[in-house]
Amino acid sequence: MANVSLEKVADVLCFAGRQQRFKHYSSVLKCEMHFSLFLPPQAVDKKVPLLVWLSGLTCTDENFVTKAGAQHVAAELGIAMLAPDTSPRGEGVPDDDAYDAGVGAGFYVNATQAPWSRHYHMYDYVVQELPALLGREVTALDLTRSSIMGHSMGGHGALVIGLRNVDRYRSISAFAPICAPSQCPWGEKALAMYLGEDKTQWRDYDASLLLAVAGPTIPIRVDQGLADNFLTSQLMPETLIAAAPEKYPLQVFQHPGYDHSYFFIASFIEAHLRFHAQFLNL
Amino acid sequence: MANVSLEKVADVLCFAGRQQRFKHYSSVLKCEMHFSLFLPPQAVDKKVPLLVWLSGLTCTDENFVTKAGAQHVAAELGIAMLAPDTSPRGEGVPDDDAYDAGVGAGFYVNATQAPWSRHYHMYDYVVQELPALLGREVTALDLTRSSIMGHSMGGHGALVIGLRNVDRYRSISAFAPICAPSQCPWGEKALAMYLGEDKTQWRDYDASLLLAVAGPTIPIRVDQGLADNFLTSQLMPETLIAAAPEKYPLQVFQHPGYDHSYFFIASFIEAHLRFHAQFLNL
Repeated sequence: MANVSLEKVADVLCFAGRQQRFKHYSSVLKCEMHFSLFLPPQAVDKKVPLLVWLSGLTCTDENFVTKAGAQHVAAELGIAMLAPDTSPRGEGVPDDDAYDAGVGAGFYVNATQAPWSRHYHMYDYVVQELPALLGREVTALDLTRSSIMGHSMGGHGALVIGLRNVDRYRSISAFAPICAPSQCPWGEKALAMYLGEDKTQWRDYDASLLLAVAGPTIPIRVDQGLADNFLTSQLMPETLIAAAPEKYPLQVFQHPGYDHSYFFIASFIEAHLRFHAQFLNL
Repeated sequence: MANVSLEKVADVLCFAGRQQRFKHYSSVLKCEMHFSLFLPPQAVDKKVPLLVWLSGLTCTDENFVTKAGAQHVAAELGIAMLAPDTSPRGEGVPDDDAYDAGVGAGFYVNATQAPWSRHYHMYDYVVQELPALLGREVTALDLTRSSIMGHSMGGHGALVIGLRNVDRYRSISAFAPICAPSQCPWGEKALAMYLGEDKTQWRDYDASLLLAVAGPTIPIRVDQGLADNFLTSQLMPETLIAAAPEKYPLQVFQHPGYDHSYFFIASFIEAHLRFHAQFLNL
Protein backbone atom coordinates (compact mmCIF):
# COMPACT_ATOMS: atom_id res chain seq x y z
CA MET A 1 0.00 0.00 0.00
CA ALA A 2 2.47 2.61 -1.17
CA ASN A 3 -0.04 5.35 -1.70
CA VAL A 4 -2.19 5.19 1.35
CA SER A 5 -4.68 7.98 1.50
CA LEU A 6 -5.94 9.93 4.44
CA GLU A 7 -9.60 10.33 5.23
CA LYS A 8 -10.38 13.49 7.15
CA VAL A 9 -13.03 12.66 9.76
CA ALA A 10 -13.09 15.98 11.64
CA ASP A 11 -11.97 19.52 10.93
CA VAL A 12 -12.91 22.20 13.43
CA LEU A 13 -11.78 25.79 13.80
CA CYS A 14 -9.85 26.28 17.05
CA PHE A 15 -7.89 29.42 17.99
CA ALA A 16 -8.11 30.42 14.32
CA GLY A 17 -6.30 27.20 13.37
CA ARG A 18 -7.72 23.82 12.37
CA GLN A 19 -8.09 20.91 14.77
CA GLN A 20 -8.34 17.93 12.46
CA ARG A 21 -8.70 14.18 12.81
CA PHE A 22 -7.78 11.62 10.18
CA LYS A 23 -8.37 7.93 9.54
CA HIS A 24 -5.98 5.84 7.46
CA TYR A 25 -4.86 2.29 6.91
CA SER A 26 -1.44 1.74 8.49
CA SER A 27 0.67 -0.74 6.56
CA VAL A 28 3.09 -0.85 9.51
CA LEU A 29 0.42 -1.64 12.09
CA LYS A 30 -1.80 -3.59 9.67
CA CYS A 31 -4.99 -1.95 10.86
CA GLU A 32 -7.01 1.23 10.49
CA MET A 33 -5.73 4.08 12.65
CA HIS A 34 -6.81 7.56 13.69
CA PHE A 35 -4.59 10.51 14.47
CA SER A 36 -5.22 14.14 15.33
CA LEU A 37 -3.46 17.11 13.78
CA PHE A 38 -3.61 20.77 14.76
CA LEU A 39 -2.64 23.25 12.07
CA PRO A 40 -2.00 26.76 13.39
CA PRO A 41 -3.39 29.76 11.50
CA GLN A 42 0.07 30.48 10.05
CA ALA A 43 -0.18 27.24 8.01
CA VAL A 44 -2.45 29.00 5.53
CA ASP A 45 0.46 31.14 4.30
CA LYS A 46 3.62 29.16 4.97
CA LYS A 47 5.08 25.85 6.03
CA VAL A 48 5.05 25.30 9.77
CA PRO A 49 7.13 23.02 12.01
CA LEU A 50 5.65 19.93 13.65
CA LEU A 51 5.57 18.98 17.31
CA VAL A 52 4.62 15.34 17.95
CA TRP A 53 2.72 14.44 21.13
CA LEU A 54 2.77 10.85 22.40
CA SER A 55 0.06 9.99 24.91
CA GLY A 56 0.10 7.74 27.94
CA LEU A 57 -1.56 4.46 28.89
CA THR A 58 -5.26 4.09 28.00
CA CYS A 59 -5.28 7.24 25.87
CA THR A 60 -6.26 7.66 22.23
CA ASP A 61 -5.26 10.44 19.85
CA GLU A 62 -7.99 12.60 21.38
CA ASN A 63 -7.01 13.06 25.04
CA PHE A 64 -4.27 15.59 24.41
CA VAL A 65 -6.40 17.45 21.90
CA THR A 66 -9.35 17.93 24.25
CA LYS A 67 -7.60 18.28 27.62
CA ALA A 68 -4.16 19.89 27.36
CA GLY A 69 -5.14 23.35 26.13
CA ALA A 70 -2.08 23.39 23.87
CA GLN A 71 -3.75 24.86 20.77
CA HIS A 72 -3.78 28.26 22.49
CA VAL A 73 0.02 28.49 22.43
CA ALA A 74 0.58 26.51 19.23
CA ALA A 75 -1.65 28.99 17.40
CA GLU A 76 0.36 31.89 18.76
CA LEU A 77 3.74 30.33 17.94
CA GLY A 78 2.77 28.83 14.59
CA ILE A 79 3.48 25.18 15.43
CA ALA A 80 1.52 22.20 14.11
CA MET A 81 0.86 19.37 16.57
CA LEU A 82 0.41 15.69 15.76
CA ALA A 83 -1.19 13.30 18.25
CA PRO A 84 -1.06 9.64 17.22
CA ASP A 85 -2.98 6.87 18.95
CA THR A 86 -1.20 4.78 21.61
CA SER A 87 -1.45 1.35 19.95
CA PRO A 88 -2.92 -0.50 17.01
CA ARG A 89 -6.65 -1.12 17.41
CA GLY A 90 -9.56 -2.97 15.92
CA GLU A 91 -10.68 -6.43 14.97
CA GLY A 92 -7.85 -8.94 14.82
CA VAL A 93 -5.47 -6.82 16.91
CA PRO A 94 -4.43 -8.81 20.01
CA ASP A 95 -5.37 -7.25 23.33
CA ASP A 96 -5.04 -7.89 27.04
CA ASP A 97 -7.53 -7.21 29.81
CA ALA A 98 -5.02 -5.13 31.76
CA TYR A 99 -4.91 -1.37 31.14
CA ASP A 100 -1.12 -1.49 30.83
CA ALA A 101 -0.83 -4.11 28.08
CA GLY A 102 -2.15 -4.45 24.53
CA VAL A 103 -4.60 -1.90 23.14
CA GLY A 104 -3.91 1.58 24.57
CA ALA A 105 -0.48 0.42 25.73
CA GLY A 106 1.77 0.02 22.70
CA PHE A 107 4.78 1.47 24.56
CA TYR A 108 6.19 2.82 21.25
CA VAL A 109 8.18 -0.35 20.56
CA ASN A 110 8.47 -2.73 17.60
CA ALA A 111 7.24 -5.98 19.13
CA THR A 112 9.12 -9.18 18.30
CA GLN A 113 7.05 -11.65 20.32
CA ALA A 114 3.86 -13.49 19.39
CA PRO A 115 1.03 -12.58 19.36
CA TRP A 116 2.11 -8.92 19.41
CA SER A 117 4.69 -8.88 16.64
CA ARG A 118 2.20 -8.74 13.77
CA HIS A 119 0.61 -5.40 14.74
CA TYR A 120 2.49 -3.72 17.60
CA HIS A 121 5.08 -1.61 15.79
CA MET A 122 4.33 1.80 17.23
CA TYR A 123 8.00 2.80 17.03
CA ASP A 124 8.10 2.45 13.25
CA TYR A 125 4.63 3.92 12.95
CA VAL A 126 5.64 7.13 14.74
CA VAL A 127 9.19 7.43 13.36
CA GLN A 128 8.67 6.26 9.78
CA GLU A 129 5.13 5.82 8.56
CA LEU A 130 3.38 8.88 9.97
CA PRO A 131 6.06 11.40 8.90
CA ALA A 132 6.15 9.87 5.40
CA LEU A 133 2.36 10.03 5.17
CA LEU A 134 2.20 13.62 6.42
CA GLY A 135 5.05 14.64 4.14
CA ARG A 136 3.09 13.38 1.15
CA GLU A 137 -0.36 14.54 2.14
CA VAL A 138 -0.11 17.69 4.26
CA THR A 139 1.82 20.27 2.32
CA ALA A 140 1.63 22.89 5.08
CA LEU A 141 4.16 20.97 7.22
CA ASP A 142 7.91 21.51 7.17
CA LEU A 143 9.03 18.15 8.55
CA THR A 144 12.69 19.19 8.56
CA ARG A 145 11.63 21.09 11.68
CA SER A 146 10.16 18.52 14.07
CA SER A 147 10.33 17.99 17.81
CA ILE A 148 8.71 15.41 20.06
CA MET A 149 7.06 15.33 23.47
CA GLY A 150 4.78 13.11 25.53
CA HIS A 151 3.30 12.06 28.84
CA SER A 152 4.06 9.05 31.03
CA MET A 153 4.28 6.06 28.61
CA GLY A 154 4.34 8.72 25.89
CA GLY A 155 7.10 10.59 27.70
CA HIS A 156 9.08 7.36 27.55
CA GLY A 157 8.23 7.17 23.84
CA ALA A 158 9.32 10.75 23.19
CA LEU A 159 12.63 10.28 25.02
CA VAL A 160 13.42 6.99 23.30
CA ILE A 161 12.39 8.13 19.83
CA GLY A 162 14.12 11.49 20.14
CA LEU A 163 17.36 10.06 21.53
CA ARG A 164 17.50 7.45 18.76
CA ASN A 165 16.71 9.94 15.99
CA VAL A 166 18.59 13.14 16.69
CA ASP A 167 18.66 13.78 12.93
CA ARG A 168 14.86 13.81 12.79
CA TYR A 169 13.95 15.75 15.95
CA ARG A 170 15.39 19.00 17.28
CA SER A 171 14.26 18.76 20.89
CA ILE A 172 12.47 16.43 23.31
CA SER A 173 10.18 17.14 26.22
CA ALA A 174 8.25 14.95 28.58
CA PHE A 175 5.71 15.20 31.37
CA ALA A 176 6.16 12.55 34.06
CA PRO A 177 7.89 10.09 31.69
CA ILE A 178 8.68 6.47 32.46
CA CYS A 179 12.41 7.13 32.59
CA ALA A 180 13.76 3.64 33.19
CA PRO A 181 11.34 1.04 31.84
CA SER A 182 13.83 -1.79 32.38
CA GLN A 183 13.54 -1.20 36.11
CA CYS A 184 9.86 -0.43 36.81
CA PRO A 185 6.79 -2.69 36.84
CA TRP A 186 5.03 -1.05 33.85
CA GLY A 187 8.16 -1.25 31.74
CA GLU A 188 9.28 -4.72 32.83
CA LYS A 189 5.87 -6.14 32.02
CA ALA A 190 5.54 -4.41 28.65
CA LEU A 191 9.09 -4.95 27.44
CA ALA A 192 9.06 -8.64 28.40
CA MET A 193 5.72 -9.08 26.67
CA TYR A 194 6.59 -7.25 23.47
CA LEU A 195 10.34 -7.96 23.23
CA GLY A 196 10.91 -11.15 25.21
CA GLU A 197 12.73 -11.96 28.43
CA ASP A 198 16.22 -11.22 27.08
CA LYS A 199 16.93 -7.81 28.58
CA THR A 200 19.63 -6.99 26.03
CA GLN A 201 16.71 -6.50 23.64
CA TRP A 202 15.24 -3.83 25.91
CA ARG A 203 18.16 -1.41 25.74
CA ASP A 204 16.94 0.42 22.67
CA TYR A 205 13.72 1.27 24.50
CA ASP A 206 15.08 2.52 27.82
CA ALA A 207 15.67 6.29 27.87
CA SER A 208 18.11 6.15 30.78
CA LEU A 209 20.24 3.47 29.10
CA LEU A 210 20.13 5.37 25.80
CA LEU A 211 21.02 8.68 27.44
CA ALA A 212 24.03 7.12 29.21
CA VAL A 213 25.61 6.28 25.85
CA ALA A 214 24.21 9.20 23.86
CA GLY A 215 26.31 10.55 21.01
CA PRO A 216 25.13 13.84 19.49
CA THR A 217 23.14 15.81 22.04
CA ILE A 218 19.51 16.84 21.74
CA PRO A 219 17.96 19.34 24.20
CA ILE A 220 15.62 17.65 26.68
CA ARG A 221 13.11 19.15 29.11
CA VAL A 222 11.31 17.00 31.69
CA ASP A 223 8.61 18.18 34.10
CA GLN A 224 7.58 16.01 37.01
CA GLY A 225 4.91 16.56 39.64
CA LEU A 226 5.99 15.58 43.14
CA ALA A 227 2.47 14.52 44.17
CA ASP A 228 2.40 12.03 41.28
CA ASN A 229 1.28 8.61 42.57
CA PHE A 230 3.58 6.85 40.11
CA LEU A 231 6.70 8.89 40.82
CA THR A 232 8.80 6.44 42.81
CA SER A 233 7.34 3.16 41.62
CA GLN A 234 7.16 3.73 37.87
CA LEU A 235 8.70 7.00 36.67
CA MET A 236 12.15 7.32 38.32
CA PRO A 237 13.38 10.65 36.95
CA GLU A 238 16.44 10.35 39.22
CA THR A 239 17.62 7.44 37.07
CA LEU A 240 17.47 9.60 33.94
CA ILE A 241 19.30 12.44 35.68
CA ALA A 242 22.01 10.08 36.93
CA ALA A 243 22.42 8.58 33.45
CA ALA A 244 22.98 11.89 31.65
CA PRO A 245 26.57 12.50 30.54
CA GLU A 246 28.17 15.55 32.10
CA LYS A 247 26.92 18.84 30.58
CA TYR A 248 24.18 17.06 28.64
CA PRO A 249 21.40 19.59 27.83
CA LEU A 250 18.85 17.93 30.12
CA GLN A 251 16.60 20.11 32.26
CA VAL A 252 14.37 18.44 34.87
CA PHE A 253 11.80 20.59 36.65
CA GLN A 254 10.15 19.21 39.76
CA HIS A 255 6.82 20.65 40.84
CA PRO A 256 5.61 20.22 44.42
CA GLY A 257 1.92 19.34 44.65
CA TYR A 258 1.23 18.40 41.04
CA ASP A 259 -0.10 14.95 40.16
CA HIS A 260 -0.05 12.73 37.05
CA SER A 261 -3.15 14.17 35.37
CA TYR A 262 -3.89 16.43 32.44
CA PHE A 263 -4.35 19.25 34.96
CA PHE A 264 -0.58 19.00 35.47
CA ILE A 265 0.05 18.85 31.73
CA ALA A 266 -2.22 21.85 31.05
CA SER A 267 -0.38 23.85 33.71
CA PHE A 268 2.99 23.50 31.97
CA ILE A 269 2.21 22.85 28.31
CA GLU A 270 2.89 26.48 27.42
CA ALA A 271 6.41 26.17 28.84
CA HIS A 272 6.98 23.04 26.75
CA LEU A 273 5.84 24.66 23.53
CA ARG A 274 8.05 27.69 24.17
CA PHE A 275 10.96 25.34 24.93
CA HIS A 276 10.55 23.59 21.57
CA ALA A 277 9.97 26.87 19.72
CA GLN A 278 13.56 27.87 20.49
CA PHE A 279 14.81 24.98 18.37
CA LEU A 280 12.23 25.04 15.60
CA ASN A 281 13.48 28.35 14.12
CA LEU A 282 10.35 30.27 14.94
CA MET B 1 -31.27 19.07 56.09
CA ALA B 2 -30.26 22.57 57.13
CA ASN B 3 -26.59 21.84 57.58
CA VAL B 4 -25.69 19.78 54.58
CA SER B 5 -22.00 19.06 54.39
CA LEU B 6 -19.72 18.86 51.42
CA GLU B 7 -17.56 15.86 50.68
CA LYS B 8 -14.46 16.69 48.69
CA VAL B 9 -13.91 13.90 46.15
CA ALA B 10 -11.03 15.44 44.17
CA ASP B 11 -8.51 18.19 44.76
CA VAL B 12 -5.75 18.62 42.19
CA LEU B 13 -3.20 21.36 41.70
CA CYS B 14 -3.78 23.19 38.39
CA PHE B 15 -2.05 26.42 37.33
CA ALA B 16 -1.01 26.83 40.97
CA GLY B 17 -4.69 26.84 41.98
CA ARG B 18 -6.91 23.96 43.11
CA GLN B 19 -9.29 22.12 40.80
CA GLN B 20 -11.71 20.50 43.20
CA ARG B 21 -14.80 18.31 42.97
CA PHE B 22 -17.43 17.93 45.67
CA LYS B 23 -20.33 15.62 46.43
CA HIS B 24 -23.29 16.71 48.53
CA TYR B 25 -26.92 15.95 49.16
CA SER B 26 -29.12 18.58 47.54
CA SER B 27 -32.29 19.26 49.49
CA VAL B 28 -33.63 21.23 46.51
CA LEU B 29 -33.05 18.43 44.00
CA LYS B 30 -33.60 15.61 46.52
CA CYS B 31 -30.60 13.62 45.34
CA GLU B 32 -26.86 13.45 45.66
CA MET B 33 -25.04 15.91 43.39
CA HIS B 34 -21.50 16.66 42.27
CA PHE B 35 -20.05 20.02 41.37
CA SER B 36 -16.59 21.25 40.40
CA LEU B 37 -14.86 24.30 41.82
CA PHE B 38 -11.64 25.94 40.74
CA LEU B 39 -9.91 28.09 43.34
CA PRO B 40 -7.21 30.35 41.90
CA PRO B 41 -3.88 30.68 43.72
CA GLN B 42 -4.95 34.08 45.09
CA ALA B 43 -7.60 32.33 47.22
CA VAL B 44 -4.92 31.31 49.70
CA ASP B 45 -4.49 34.92 50.81
CA LYS B 46 -7.78 36.67 50.14
CA LYS B 47 -11.37 36.27 49.17
CA VAL B 48 -11.90 35.86 45.43
CA PRO B 49 -14.95 36.47 43.23
CA LEU B 50 -16.94 33.61 41.71
CA LEU B 51 -17.78 32.95 38.08
CA VAL B 52 -20.47 30.31 37.58
CA TRP B 53 -20.37 28.12 34.46
CA LEU B 54 -23.54 26.35 33.31
CA SER B 55 -22.99 23.49 30.86
CA GLY B 56 -25.01 22.32 27.90
CA LEU B 57 -27.04 19.23 27.08
CA THR B 58 -25.53 15.85 28.04
CA CYS B 59 -22.73 17.46 30.08
CA THR B 60 -21.83 16.92 33.71
CA ASP B 61 -19.88 19.25 36.00
CA GLU B 62 -16.67 17.90 34.45
CA ASN B 63 -16.80 18.86 30.76
CA PHE B 64 -15.96 22.51 31.27
CA VAL B 65 -13.24 21.66 33.76
CA THR B 66 -11.40 19.27 31.45
CA LYS B 67 -12.03 20.87 28.05
CA ALA B 68 -12.32 24.65 28.18
CA GLY B 69 -8.82 25.55 29.33
CA ALA B 70 -10.26 28.29 31.54
CA GLN B 71 -8.10 27.66 34.61
CA HIS B 72 -5.18 29.27 32.80
CA VAL B 73 -6.85 32.68 32.78
CA ALA B 74 -8.80 32.29 36.03
CA ALA B 75 -5.50 31.64 37.82
CA GLU B 76 -4.02 34.78 36.34
CA LEU B 77 -7.02 36.96 37.14
CA GLY B 78 -7.80 35.47 40.55
CA ILE B 79 -11.33 34.27 39.82
CA ALA B 80 -12.92 31.12 41.26
CA MET B 81 -15.10 29.08 38.89
CA LEU B 82 -18.05 26.90 39.83
CA ALA B 83 -19.38 24.25 37.44
CA PRO B 84 -22.61 22.58 38.59
CA ASP B 85 -24.08 19.49 36.96
CA THR B 86 -26.82 19.92 34.34
CA SER B 87 -29.65 18.06 36.09
CA PRO B 88 -30.50 15.95 39.13
CA ARG B 89 -29.19 12.39 38.81
CA GLY B 90 -29.32 8.98 40.39
CA GLU B 91 -31.75 6.32 41.47
CA GLY B 92 -35.32 7.55 41.64
CA VAL B 93 -34.72 10.61 39.45
CA PRO B 94 -37.02 10.44 36.38
CA ASP B 95 -35.25 10.28 33.04
CA ASP B 96 -36.02 10.14 29.35
CA ASP B 97 -34.23 8.22 26.60
CA ALA B 98 -33.70 11.38 24.55
CA TYR B 99 -30.49 13.35 25.08
CA ASP B 100 -32.46 16.60 25.30
CA ALA B 101 -34.83 15.63 28.12
CA GLY B 102 -34.42 14.43 31.70
CA VAL B 103 -30.95 13.61 33.06
CA GLY B 104 -28.31 15.89 31.52
CA ALA B 105 -31.03 18.26 30.34
CA GLY B 106 -32.46 20.10 33.32
CA PHE B 107 -32.72 23.38 31.40
CA TYR B 108 -32.19 25.37 34.62
CA VAL B 109 -35.92 25.55 35.38
CA ASN B 110 -38.08 24.72 38.39
CA ALA B 111 -40.33 21.99 36.99
CA THR B 112 -44.00 22.07 37.86
CA GLN B 113 -45.16 19.00 35.96
CA ALA B 114 -45.15 15.34 37.01
CA PRO B 115 -42.97 13.33 37.06
CA TRP B 116 -40.33 16.07 36.88
CA SER B 117 -41.52 18.41 39.60
CA ARG B 118 -40.11 16.41 42.52
CA HIS B 119 -36.44 16.65 41.46
CA TYR B 120 -35.98 19.02 38.52
CA HIS B 121 -35.39 22.38 40.22
CA MET B 122 -32.08 23.38 38.70
CA TYR B 123 -33.03 27.07 38.80
CA ASP B 124 -33.31 27.09 42.59
CA TYR B 125 -30.30 24.81 42.92
CA VAL B 126 -28.07 27.23 41.00
CA VAL B 127 -29.54 30.50 42.31
CA GLN B 128 -30.23 29.57 45.94
CA GLU B 129 -28.84 26.31 47.24
CA LEU B 130 -25.34 26.28 45.75
CA PRO B 131 -24.46 29.87 46.71
CA ALA B 132 -25.77 29.29 50.24
CA LEU B 133 -23.75 26.11 50.53
CA LEU B 134 -20.58 27.70 49.18
CA GLY B 135 -21.06 30.74 51.38
CA ARG B 136 -21.14 28.50 54.46
CA GLU B 137 -18.44 26.05 53.49
CA VAL B 138 -15.88 27.77 51.26
CA THR B 139 -14.54 30.79 53.10
CA ALA B 140 -12.22 31.82 50.25
CA LEU B 141 -15.18 33.01 48.15
CA ASP B 142 -16.58 36.54 48.11
CA LEU B 143 -20.06 35.82 46.80
CA THR B 144 -20.98 39.50 46.71
CA ARG B 145 -18.86 39.43 43.54
CA SER B 146 -20.41 36.81 41.25
CA SER B 147 -21.00 36.57 37.53
CA ILE B 148 -22.47 33.82 35.39
CA MET B 149 -21.78 32.24 32.01
CA GLY B 150 -22.64 29.11 30.07
CA HIS B 151 -22.85 27.21 26.80
CA SER B 152 -25.89 26.30 24.70
CA MET B 153 -28.54 25.09 27.20
CA GLY B 154 -26.21 26.53 29.85
CA GLY B 155 -26.00 29.81 27.93
CA HIS B 156 -29.78 29.93 28.15
CA GLY B 157 -29.45 29.21 31.87
CA ALA B 158 -26.88 31.95 32.38
CA LEU B 159 -28.96 34.54 30.52
CA VAL B 160 -32.17 33.64 32.32
CA ILE B 161 -30.62 33.41 35.77
CA GLY B 162 -28.57 36.58 35.32
CA LEU B 163 -31.45 38.63 33.91
CA ARG B 164 -33.74 37.54 36.77
CA ASN B 165 -31.13 38.18 39.47
CA VAL B 166 -29.30 41.38 38.65
CA ASP B 167 -28.71 41.86 42.37
CA ARG B 168 -26.79 38.57 42.60
CA TYR B 169 -24.73 38.66 39.39
CA ARG B 170 -22.65 41.48 37.95
CA SER B 171 -22.35 40.28 34.36
CA ILE B 172 -23.51 37.50 32.04
CA SER B 173 -21.82 35.78 29.16
CA ALA B 174 -22.81 32.93 26.89
CA PHE B 175 -21.37 30.76 24.15
CA ALA B 176 -23.94 29.77 21.53
CA PRO B 177 -26.88 30.13 23.94
CA ILE B 178 -30.43 29.00 23.27
CA CYS B 179 -31.73 32.55 23.03
CA ALA B 180 -35.44 31.98 22.51
CA PRO B 181 -36.47 28.64 23.99
CA SER B 182 -40.18 29.38 23.50
CA GLN B 183 -39.58 29.31 19.75
CA CYS B 184 -37.10 26.48 19.10
CA PRO B 185 -37.52 22.69 19.20
CA TRP B 186 -35.18 22.07 22.16
CA GLY B 187 -36.87 24.75 24.23
CA GLU B 188 -40.46 23.98 23.22
CA LYS B 189 -40.00 20.33 24.13
CA ALA B 190 -38.26 21.01 27.46
CA LEU B 191 -40.48 23.85 28.62
CA ALA B 192 -43.68 21.97 27.77
CA MET B 193 -42.38 18.89 29.56
CA TYR B 194 -41.16 20.67 32.71
CA LEU B 195 -43.65 23.58 32.88
CA GLY B 196 -46.73 22.41 30.99
CA GLU B 197 -48.37 23.50 27.78
CA ASP B 198 -49.45 26.95 29.03
CA LYS B 199 -46.87 29.20 27.40
CA THR B 200 -47.44 32.02 29.87
CA GLN B 201 -45.54 29.81 32.32
CA TRP B 202 -42.53 29.79 30.00
CA ARG B 203 -41.87 33.54 30.06
CA ASP B 204 -39.62 33.47 33.07
CA TYR B 205 -37.32 31.03 31.28
CA ASP B 206 -36.96 32.74 27.90
CA ALA B 207 -33.99 35.11 27.73
CA SER B 208 -35.38 37.07 24.78
CA LEU B 209 -38.72 37.64 26.51
CA LEU B 210 -36.96 38.59 29.75
CA LEU B 211 -34.57 40.96 28.00
CA ALA B 212 -37.44 42.72 26.22
CA VAL B 213 -38.90 43.78 29.57
CA ALA B 214 -35.64 44.08 31.50
CA GLY B 215 -35.46 46.66 34.27
CA PRO B 216 -31.98 47.31 35.70
CA THR B 217 -29.33 46.48 33.13
CA ILE B 218 -26.63 43.85 33.46
CA PRO B 219 -23.75 43.67 30.97
CA ILE B 220 -24.09 40.72 28.58
CA ARG B 221 -21.57 39.22 26.16
CA VAL B 222 -22.59 36.51 23.67
CA ASP B 223 -20.27 34.68 21.27
CA GLN B 224 -21.70 32.63 18.46
CA GLY B 225 -19.94 30.49 15.85
CA LEU B 226 -21.38 30.86 12.37
CA ALA B 227 -20.59 27.23 11.44
CA ASP B 228 -22.65 26.02 14.40
CA ASN B 229 -25.10 23.32 13.23
CA PHE B 230 -27.71 24.53 15.71
CA LEU B 231 -27.51 28.22 14.87
CA THR B 232 -30.70 28.77 12.92
CA SER B 233 -32.82 25.91 14.23
CA GLN B 234 -32.16 26.15 17.97
CA LEU B 235 -30.07 29.15 19.03
CA MET B 236 -31.52 32.24 17.32
CA PRO B 237 -29.23 35.02 18.58
CA GLU B 238 -31.04 37.45 16.24
CA THR B 239 -34.11 37.09 18.47
CA LEU B 240 -32.11 38.13 21.52
CA ILE B 241 -30.59 41.08 19.68
CA ALA B 242 -33.99 42.22 18.45
CA ALA B 243 -35.46 41.94 21.95
CA ALA B 244 -32.83 44.10 23.65
CA PRO B 245 -34.06 47.56 24.68
CA GLU B 246 -32.23 50.42 23.00
CA LYS B 247 -28.73 51.00 24.43
CA TYR B 248 -28.88 47.79 26.49
CA PRO B 249 -25.29 46.68 27.27
CA LEU B 250 -25.50 43.56 25.08
CA GLN B 251 -22.53 42.64 22.90
CA VAL B 252 -22.92 39.79 20.40
CA PHE B 253 -19.81 38.57 18.60
CA GLN B 254 -20.25 36.37 15.56
CA HIS B 255 -17.36 34.15 14.49
CA PRO B 256 -17.20 32.77 10.95
CA GLY B 257 -16.13 29.13 10.80
CA TYR B 258 -16.55 28.18 14.47
CA ASP B 259 -18.85 25.33 15.47
CA HIS B 260 -20.76 24.37 18.65
CA SER B 261 -17.93 22.43 20.32
CA TYR B 262 -15.56 23.02 23.21
CA PHE B 263 -12.92 23.94 20.61
CA PHE B 264 -15.01 27.07 20.05
CA ILE B 265 -15.40 27.65 23.78
CA ALA B 266 -11.66 27.19 24.40
CA SER B 267 -10.88 29.70 21.65
CA PHE B 268 -12.82 32.52 23.35
CA ILE B 269 -12.94 31.61 27.03
CA GLU B 270 -10.12 34.04 27.80
CA ALA B 271 -12.16 36.90 26.33
CA HIS B 272 -15.13 35.89 28.49
CA LEU B 273 -13.09 35.80 31.69
CA ARG B 274 -11.56 39.19 30.92
CA PHE B 275 -15.07 40.54 30.18
CA HIS B 276 -16.32 39.42 33.59
CA ALA B 277 -13.15 40.59 35.34
CA GLN B 278 -14.08 44.19 34.50
CA PHE B 279 -17.18 43.91 36.67
CA LEU B 280 -15.80 41.78 39.50
CA ASN B 281 -13.51 44.55 40.84
CA LEU B 282 -10.30 42.73 40.04
